[in-house]
Formats: sequence, C-alpha cells, structure tokens
Amino acid sequence: MLAVDYVGNEEFRVSERASRPPGPGEVQIAVAYVGICGTDLHIKHGHMDRRVVIPGPIGHEMSGTIAMVGDGVTAFEVGQPVTVMPLEWCGDCPACLAGHQHVCQHLVFVGIDSAGAMQELWTVDQSIVVPLPPTLGLDRGALVEPVAVAVHDVRRARVTTSERVLVVGGGPIGLLIAMVARCRGADVLISEPNRSRRAVAERLGLKTADPVAGDVLELVESWTAGAGVDVAFEVSGAELGLLTATHALRVRGRLLIVAIHSQPVPVDLFRVFWRELDLIGARVYEHDDFEEAVSLLANERIPAGELISAVEPLKRTAEAFAALEAGAETVKVLIEVRS
Amino acid sequence: MLAVDYVGNEEFRVSERASRPPGPGEVQIAVAYVGICGTDLHIKHGHMDRRVVIPGPIGHEMSGTIAMVGDGVTAFEVGQPVTVMPLEWCGDCPACLAGHQHVCQHLVFVGIDSAGAMQELWTVDQSIVVPLPPTLGLDRGALVEPVAVAVHDVRRARVTTSERVLVVGGGPIGLLIAMVARCRGADVLISEPNRSRRAVAERLGLKTADPVAGDVLELVESWTAGAGVDVAFEVSGAELGLLTATHALRVRGRLLIVAIHSQPVPVDLFRVFWRELDLIGARVYEHDDFEEAVSLLANERIPAGELISAVEPLKRTAEAFAALEAGAETVKVLIEVRS
Repeated sequence: MLAVDYVGNEEFRVSERASRPPGPGEVQIAVAYVGICGTDLHIKHGHMDRRVVIPGPIGHEMSGTIAMVGDGVTAFEVGQPVTVMPLEWCGDCPACLAGHQHVCQHLVFVGIDSAGAMQELWTVDQSIVVPLPPTLGLDRGALVEPVAVAVHDVRRARVTTSERVLVVGGGPIGLLIAMVARCRGADVLISEPNRSRRAVAERLGLKTADPVAGDVLELVESWTAGAGVDVAFEVSGAELGLLTATHALRVRGRLLIVAIHSQPVPVDLFRVFWRELDLIGARVYEHDDFEEAVSLLANERIPAGELISAVEPLKRTAEAFAALEAGAETVKVLIEVRS
Repeated sequence: MLAVDYVGNEEFRVSERASRPPGPGEVQIAVAYVGICGTDLHIKHGHMDRRVVIPGPIGHEMSGTIAMVGDGVTAFEVGQPVTVMPLEWCGDCPACLAGHQHVCQHLVFVGIDSAGAMQELWTVDQSIVVPLPPTLGLDRGALVEPVAVAVHDVRRARVTTSERVLVVGGGPIGLLIAMVARCRGADVLISEPNRSRRAVAERLGLKTADPVAGDVLELVESWTAGAGVDVAFEVSGAELGLLTATHALRVRGRLLIVAIHSQPVPVDLFRVFWRELDLIGARVYEHDDFEEAVSLLANERIPAGELISAVEPLKRTAEAFAALEAGAETVKVLIEVRS
C-alpha cells in the first residue's frame, strides 16, 4: 500500500509498504479521504515533534470503508463506510472515572500521538470506529471530526434558541461553530479581519463584521440594544480577539476558549468579575458530539460541499498542505487516499 | 449627630452635623457598627476618588436599629435591628431586566457611590434595608455583608457536599469563603503565605498550606489522589496565586475569580482548554445570599466572634483603619458608631 510519512523538517515522504493486518478486536480501514487540520499544520512546522512519531503517517480527520475485520469483531462488516473518533483513553485515571474520558489524563490522540490515516490501509482498534450512513458521501464523511469539535464547543457553551452569538475568528472551526450555533437557533455574527474568509462566511449565509474597518463592540452594542451577546467563541488565538470576546458579552455571558493559547495570555479578569462572566474551556469531543456531527452532515444541515475547497491525491500531500496554507479563502483541503 | 467624612489624601475628619430626616419610603437608622472592608482601604488610599463623594462618609458593612420611619413605611418599626444590602439598581437596564439586578449596568454601591454608614444617623431608602433577628448581636450583624459576599461566591461556584475546595488567599474574604464552603459540606484547604493569617485559619479549624514552604500543587495532587480539586477560589490577587488555582483543578473544575484584578493578567488558557475548566466571575451578592448570611451568623455556623479583631469608637476611625492595615492577623475591625 501507499503511505505518507511526516519526516520532520516540514517534509512528507510517500512510500510503498506492507499494511498491518488487523489483530483481535481491530479493523483495517481502506481510507478514502483525510482532511488536513490546523493541528496537522502545526505538526508540519515542527511544533509538535515531541508528540508525533517521526517518521510516521499523521491525519485524524478521515473517512473510509472497512477492508478487513480482526478476530472477535462483530460490530462492523467489510465494505461498511466508517470514520474514526481518534481518542484512546486509559479508563482508570480520575478524569476517566469521573466520566470525562475524552479528556483522559493519559489521552492518546490517534493521528498525533500514534499513527494516523495518511495511508491506504489503516488498522485501528474497533472501539474508535464510528459507522457512517451510506447516504453520506465519503468526502463529506471526512468532515465529521471537525464538525464534532464545533458541536462540542457549542454544547459546552449551552447555546440555545434565539441567543445572540459572536464568533471571533472565521477560520474552518469558527465557521463550523457558527453553523452549528445557527442549527441551534442562535443568531450568529462572525468577526474576521480577512476579506476572503468573510466572503466564505457570507456565502454560507452568515453575518460578518470586519474588526479592522469598524468597532465590533459598537456593532454588538447596537445589535443587542446595549446588553451584549449571550455567548462569544474566541477562535482567533489573538490577544485582541480575546479582549473583544470578553467585552462583547452580556452580564453572565459565556466565553468559550476555543483557540489554543500555548502561553499564558492577558485576560481582563476585571470584566469577568464586573459582569459575572463564565469562561469555559472545551477540548475535542465526546461520543454524542461525534454522532450529532454525523447526523448534521448526513441531513445536510452543515453544507459540507461548500467547505471542501480542494481535493488532492495522496501522492500530492505536500501540495495539499501548501494549498491550505496559501489562501485564506481555503476552508478544508482533503487528501484523497484511495486510488 | 457625629459623622466621619473621607476627605481625600488618606484622611478622615470627624464632625458634628444635623441628620437628614427620612423622606417618604425612607428610614433613618441609628448606626451601631460599621465594618472596614478592603474596598474602604482602597478608598482611603485614593484609588477610588473618581467614584466616592469627597468629603463624605463611606462604609457599607453595618448594623443598627431603626430610629425613624418616613411616610408610607410599614415594613419597619422604630427599634428594630437591621442591616443594609448596599446595592441600588436602575430596574430597566438589560442586566436588571434579565433578573441580575445585583450587577445592574448602572449599579449604585451605597457607601461607595453614595453616602455610607459612618454617621450616627443614616437615612436610606427602605428597599435596601434587611431585618436582623433580635438574637444576633449587632456587632456580629455588621458582618452580614462580607458573609453575603462569601455566600455568593460559594453559590456561583456550585460547591456541594464532600467536594474538595482550595482557597488561595487567607484574608477576611478567603476565610469567610472557606467557612461557607465548609458549611456546604466541602473539605477545604487554604493556601496563605502569611503565618499570622494561617494561625487565624487554624484557630477556625481550617486546613492550611504555606505556598512558600512547600509546593501546594504537590499537596493537592496527593490530597486528591491525582485528580485535582473540584473548586478553587482565587482570592489572593497575585499572579502566582492565580496560576496555582488554575493548575490545582481537576478536569472540569471550577475556578472562582474573587480577587479584583484592575489590569488584565496572564491566565493559563492552555490549562483551561486542556482540562475543560470553568472560570467564573462573581460580584457582590443577591438578596438570597444576604438572607443566608443573616441565617449563618444567627445560627452561629459562622463564628463571627472569632473574626472581630478590634472595635474602635467612631472618633477613632483613623486609628481603626491603621489597626486593620497594621497586622495580618487582624481579620475584621469594627467602628462602634453608637456612643
């Protein structure tokens, strides 16, 4: 089979190798598509060399069909379309025992901490495999994982019907959060300085604001008649974005910390105190989020077709990464692994 | 009557003046005791000169008895012991309309934004007056307001029975939070570098840790068998205290921002993300908190006697402030206003 290894130094290498047959309780998946995630970009740039296996295949947003099942596997059959929820937990740390396995204190993120999906035949434990409905195209099926991130963020934020929501940052996750919040009946505004990204959001029917051209806080003030928004999602990773999100909220508003800040950043805790805000951390997803993501895509409540900007074959993995980094209007680039 | 004015420049001036008779809907209170709060110290040091009336009496932690009632007042009678919940809200801003009057967007904090209790006869609107049970000594009645702060913080933190709680900072509010959390059945640890303050906490039967002598996070790790505490209260106002509180929490733990940080401070949002933490702002109190504070003091579940370190007559207001600033073991200094 063909596989792509991340080999360090911003490089990927394509090579032919033998696939690993599934052991007891495992399945082998004929991978169809792998989506490239922001985390994969971080891996490419060496930011996560301490976590990933080098050389080794990465990739955790994927779809495919069951190619072979190992001994004792009865829940899946050959040919069945599937995706993977790429989390492996220990089951006995305090987080697991409290029912929060998705943030297990010894979590293995499959495709980062262990081999990923950028290979034609990928063998994984059946416990992380999630069935896809046959009606959902496999290209769209590769979007389940990022949609599940957005579903989890929106669920942690407890967004409800007719709430006003500000999403700060209009990249792929920002867009997905906005769309999932809209599915909940919320009225959503995306703040994004990049014109191309705003254009994508507008094509998806979302309200946008340019934080460079105007004062987003003034806009929020008039939009909410002086109250502030119910929920803000900080997806920009920028200090100014965080400040905007904090100041846009109503009394008792909820601020979701979605962007990953690798260093401590200044937070206006006076505002948190003054308006009794709630800052909420959200990480990956739980099984329910994954299932809801499948359903949102299958029912076309998330217009996945609009989000797939380019599809490149496995051999052109390097070009696929370059395409994603080249244009701000590029939302999701898929690698077509099947030949 | 005698009154004390804050006159700016760290000074107070005692003088004789006429009292204001109560108008319709008002009552005049013969003030018994006024507690000195951390905010009053800030006022003394000029940090709040933009808010307070200069010259004018301050003071918002108090007790007294009704001296006179204005036209239309039927809920109170002369001689009745009372305290004041020193918040006046507008009733029609978005926060008020949403039921969060205590954080009204135009809140007047009585004793800061308007004249306070450091006067023998204090005339206020009946709407902010709260009856005290006759069994509660008026000295202890002056503690209702700070106890209500702690009740509100603990309620915002949703502390429940047998949860493990870390309080970072052992000043008066930290001690009160610890005691209220203990009343909820929580197991509480106070981290406080000052030996005198730790001694006060220990006298109150609370577990303490010295963050200078040992690693509080290691202690928490072993106390909670690797899980982390359920709730942390950041009451220190120090960056290191905030970091300790953030890192001491279990997955999905709650961090209450109690200390007031006037400038944005670095927060480890990576940890917030990684453990899906919840940072919660809490400000003043609601009516229910005030009533619970009265009840906790009346039932002696909060040992108020242990908390009153000194009582000074109104004429010695300057000395009372000095006493509070002199010793870390001083918890609460009361001014006895009645002569």
